[in-house]
Amino acid sequence: MDEDARRLGRGRGGEPAARQASLRAHNLSLLLRHVPAGAPGISRAELANRTGLTRATVSTLVEALLAARVLAWLPFASTGSAGRPPTPVALARGTVAGLGLEVTPEHVAACAVDLAGEVLALELRPLPAGGAADVLAATAALGADVARRTSDGGARLVGTTLAVPGIVRDGVVVDAPNLGWTDVDADGALRSAPEFAPLAALPLDVGNEASLGALAQADALRSDVRTFLYVSGDVGVGGCVVLDGVALGGQHGWAGEVGHVVVDPSGPLCRCGSQGCLEQYAGAAALRRWPTSRVGSALGIALASTINVVDVSTVLLGGTLAPLVPELRPALEAELARRVLAYPWSPVAVLAAPVREHAALLGAALAQTSAVLADPSGRLLTS
Amino acid sequence: MDEDARRLGRGRGGEPAARQASLRAHNLSLLLRHVPAGAPGISRAELANRTGLTRATVSTLVEALLAARVLAWLPFASTGSAGRPPTPVALARGTVAGLGLEVTPEHVAACAVDLAGEVLALELRPLPAGGAADVLAATAALGADVARRTSDGGARLVGTTLAVPGIVRDGVVVDAPNLGWTDVDADGALRSAPEFAPLAALPLDVGNEASLGALAQADALRSDVRTFLYVSGDVGVGGCVVLDGVALGGQHGWAGEVGHVVVDPSGPLCRCGSQGCLEQYAGAAALRRWPTSRVGSALGIALASTINVVDVSTVLLGGTLAPLVPELRPALEAELARRVLAYPWSPVAVLAAPVREHAALLGAALAQTSAVLADPSGRLLTS
Repeated sequence: MDEDARRLGRGRGGEPAARQASLRAHNLSLLLRHVPAGAPGISRAELANRTGLTRATVSTLVEALLAARVLAWLPFASTGSAGRPPTPVALARGTVAGLGLEVTPEHVAACAVDLAGEVLALELRPLPAGGAADVLAATAALGADVARRTSDGGARLVGTTLAVPGIVRDGVVVDAPNLGWTDVDADGALRSAPEFAPLAALPLDVGNEASLGALAQADALRSDVRTFLYVSGDVGVGGCVVLDGVALGGQHGWAGEVGHVVVDPSGPLCRCGSQGCLEQYAGAAALRRWPTSRVGSALGIALASTINVVDVSTVLLGGTLAPLVPELRPALEAELARRVLAYPWSPVAVLAAPVREHAALLGAALAQTSAVLADPSGRLLTS
Repeated sequence: MDEDARRLGRGRGGEPAARQASLRAHNLSLLLRHVPAGAPGISRAELANRTGLTRATVSTLVEALLAARVLAWLPFASTGSAGRPPTPVALARGTVAGLGLEVTPEHVAACAVDLAGEVLALELRPLPAGGAADVLAATAALGADVARRTSDGGARLVGTTLAVPGIVRDGVVVDAPNLGWTDVDADGALRSAPEFAPLAALPLDVGNEASLGALAQADALRSDVRTFLYVSGDVGVGGCVVLDGVALGGQHGWAGEVGHVVVDPSGPLCRCGSQGCLEQYAGAAALRRWPTSRVGSALGIALASTINVVDVSTVLLGGTLAPLVPELRPALEAELARRVLAYPWSPVAVLAAPVREHAALLGAALAQTSAVLADPSGRLLTS
């Protein structure tokens, strides 16, 4: 904002430059919220209608966004009526990208996603032998590879997010039981990898895999479902509560750990140190061990507790759990119906999450593109 | 706001009256957030310092608030230095009050609380025989009695909130298992009681007892603890998650039902229809049945699940559970330490709630006074 303000100088009417810049930033963000990712796009006239901005303001902003390759013209839409139809714009493809990285108990991964949500590159490699330092060095190297290919393809990277299956604070993986990591400075490890140097100059975040996966799910759902509980099945079970489009963070950003909600207090020992956690009934190993109806009822018990606490009426099962939804549903819904206090007034829908593969990885990249679309003036329009 | 705008007419500089009125409303609310409830009060100079408003604006607003009996002068503070010390103001006592009503499985209750949080009147009567209609008629009559005494004492009532142990939507008690109520139109029942007519002309809300109790706890804690889980013990067990001063509502406002988090999926049948709910280990009947260590460990299991989902590090036990905290703590904390994923990085403090008696009832009254202090221009300054 400060840079923008300096660049713009003092605006009309003697208003301080900072206010003008802030108004422009607000208008850009407002406008971008109404631009679709693809066909049929939206005309400038319609953008003016939907945003309440003047047509002149819309034209000026669209020019700037076209020049910065944030927007692109679409081919003329055929309206069927006489005369030249209005030329629509959409989010540009292949021009600006976020980089997502992921560490799971089985692999490291990287992907680049553009402003329109298209995957420009995606690569997985098996988890390397060794400790957290080795894993993060391999992640940095893979990320740098994918970033280089993305840049060579003509897209400008705007930042990186690393997804990990654990709780994170200020770039440090505080605890990731299924990786065996505690207090691992992932931010520091990535930054110190030589290949990662160009990326280290851009924004870099580390986040929980289920929270980032929930972002990918929310993006796929658009505005159809704004409040849901996302349950992410992998070696462990993660989760994220999304209320009216906002992930519930809690006091430290560690909310949503449904994998450690208690199903049976004297159940199997969990890697977290507790007993009878949902993860012991619905994690990857448990899916091989228990009959599906047992997994379904365990999910129902743990999610009923969760829903009584957070009050949502949509559950999205993702990752390894997504393809099992038809088999899990009967026992799961029976437990929810019996145990959710408000069920008779608000039944809970249990659905397969719309993004089945690599949700956390894609969400990590989306976190970066979403951030620049929400505040484009600082990071997209300074060139 | 509209009334205010009409009253003020067009402001200086040709700005529309609505904007002027909105600015004044904002300034009043800002100013009131900095006025303490009692001694030593705050001077106008200090108010200007803390709010960033000019001294002239502060003086004008303070005059209006003194005239409306929202603020009162305090006696001169002795500063120990020479010269006349600044005259402090504080929230007025006994001039403006909220009315709280409550229905529990054992009694109906009413109280009036003034802007400074002082209880002006409080009365409990045994739950009358009969159904919801009889109970609500008795509540309306008691509320009208307490309101009349409050008015006779010189305080102006600004609105009423009814607290019930259940889930509520738009004035309707959707489900209150321990009252045996489902789909009871409490708002309608109060409004139709003849004695209640003067109160029905003012704002009237119906809310969950634990959410209102949490408001009373948050008020008592001031800004010391802004994020906590409140657990309210009575015949049933209610709860409310408060994150940075805001109660977690969820999709329908039904969040926080920790009483129905599952402790043991094959445990005792609960009145809600489920089995092994926390309420069956920590409700009033359970406190008589189980040894304290069993109650403590059941609380620990259910609250660990809750904390893994919402991430808070302070638990306040209220109502019947508050005096038991010293005995409950060892088993409760042992379960939390074992089962809360983030416990090693953020231990959970288990404390007796600061407001021990009638928290929901007081919170119900506070909900009304808080609302007028947050937006005083419409309801306090129109006379």
